[in-house]
Amino acid sequence: MPTDLSADWVLNIQSRTEATLDRMLPRADFPPQRLHQAMRHAMLGGGKRVRPLLCHATGEMFGAASAALDAAACAVELIHGYSLVHDDLPCMDNDVLRRGKPTCHVAFGEATALLAGDALQSLAFRTLCDAELQISAMRLLADAAGSLGMAGGQSLDLDAVGQSLSLQTLETMHRKKTGALIRAAVLLGAYCGKADDEDIEILSRFAATIGLLFQVVDDILDAEASTEILGKTAGKDAKDNKLTYISLLGLDAARNKAVELGRQAHAGLDHFGQRADRLRFITDYIAKREY
Amino acid sequence: MPTDLSADWVLNIQSRTEATLDRMLPRADFPPQRLHQAMRHAMLGGGKRVRPLLCHATGEMFGAASAALDAAACAVELIHGYSLVHDDLPCMDNDVLRRGKPTCHVAFGEATALLAGDALQSLAFRTLCDAELQISAMRLLADAAGSLGMAGGQSLDLDAVGQSLSLQTLETMHRKKTGALIRAAVLLGAYCGKADDEDIEILSRFAATIGLLFQVVDDILDAEASTEILGKTAGKDAKDNKLTYISLLGLDAARNKAVELGRQAHAGLDHFGQRADRLRFITDYIAKREY
Repeated sequence: MPTDLSADWVLNIQSRTEATLDRMLPRADFPPQRLHQAMRHAMLGGGKRVRPLLCHATGEMFGAASAALDAAACAVELIHGYSLVHDDLPCMDNDVLRRGKPTCHVAFGEATALLAGDALQSLAFRTLCDAELQISAMRLLADAAGSLGMAGGQSLDLDAVGQSLSLQTLETMHRKKTGALIRAAVLLGAYCGKADDEDIEILSRFAATIGLLFQVVDDILDAEASTEILGKTAGKDAKDNKLTYISLLGLDAARNKAVELGRQAHAGLDHFGQRADRLRFITDYIAKREY
Repeated sequence: MPTDLSADWVLNIQSRTEATLDRMLPRADFPPQRLHQAMRHAMLGGGKRVRPLLCHATGEMFGAASAALDAAACAVELIHGYSLVHDDLPCMDNDVLRRGKPTCHVAFGEATALLAGDALQSLAFRTLCDAELQISAMRLLADAAGSLGMAGGQSLDLDAVGQSLSLQTLETMHRKKTGALIRAAVLLGAYCGKADDEDIEILSRFAATIGLLFQVVDDILDAEASTEILGKTAGKDAKDNKLTYISLLGLDAARNKAVELGRQAHAGLDHFGQRADRLRFITDYIAKREY
């Protein structure tokens, strides 16, 4: 697939996602207004929409209906969005900038940000109800979000601050913290279409690989890029004494690791032939992103 | 139904709920241990289990299977439990005592309590997947929990602090804040069994009435009972300048209101004859509870 066509597709899915979220989120003038404004602040106005891209790309491979994909993609993005709101709170990362805007609690206060995150999680499951998927899809998202998935990974991350841990421990944390939801994005796309068990298994491994890739690149960007380009506070990991690929491997080895994970991800897609071209494009998009 | 048999039934459902939650919550020694300990701290070791009681009582009226009721009842209780954890956080009610124990953030720190609440919400939806209900049941719980339900009511509560508002505004807040989840408990029970549309409508009105009854009694208890009996800090509403039935109506009128709501709730159950005896018993249990 020519790169410019794929870039158009990315822009198209990003704008579909924005429009679908805009429709699914309660209006800002509907009571409780302040809560709804905070939820909209957290979800609208950009973001890379990596998870919706993965969901759509995978779903399209298996002939999924686009309405179902819109709902599934937004459900995953809502879980991601709620986690960012709670992550940014003072008792967690205490961050004031996200996507170039004040974080939710800076704009709306801590209590409202807490409730907005909570309500976004409820809305994620509400939205998934509209995708007319099986209960197994709901279970997949709930597991990806919960204590054995994303929330569990964040808990491991808390435990790891200031500790000197192994690469294996770091990857266990990331498999949960970011990997579980990225896997859910890919597999929900597959569930929306007609994927068989073998497809699901291959996609699950692919998702695990790009989940790690995403995190390695995140760590590299945090060490290298400016706050202006990132749209969030740069250099924060080192300042917060966080365990990262950089603190563990150094910058050069982390870069090599990213290249190797990108290669593995591509190899994993061979099984699907040209059908997986969009997933290949997203893999490169993740590897080469600058924010 | 003799009162002592109903009291036995209450104890039986309370202990079933405790056992089911114990089984559904990840073990305390399973990683991330600290998160799982915090989740178990929040959910186990008592509580009135009013929502599970309502769910079972309603489900039994319509021949629901007890395994489905266990799952549905625990799903609602998990939503309730997560909301208490987040409510108690310093940025919300800043409370240190709950069910006679230190609140979750006092015992485990704010960050872990935040994540524990988040993961309990995910687990609620995960648990509901096991009830083998229709998607409509999932939608009901998600709506009850979200910005148009419980989280929305809490947001209205934040807005109301220090304001002088009408009885109508207070009831709108409570219909969302506690009423939505109590309604979900009743209706999920009905969904587990074979209730028809008329049943659902009558139950929905009944649930709205006991939701308000529950809140009026809560306000009376906060004003009257001791911290020791309540298991949570008493007299906090007045201290925090909260809008309550007491601040709005005074204690005597609030007591009359409780009697009137109890009468309405009983009248609403006439349609079901003896089948609704357990719901009648729970109504009186809510009206006459001392903590």
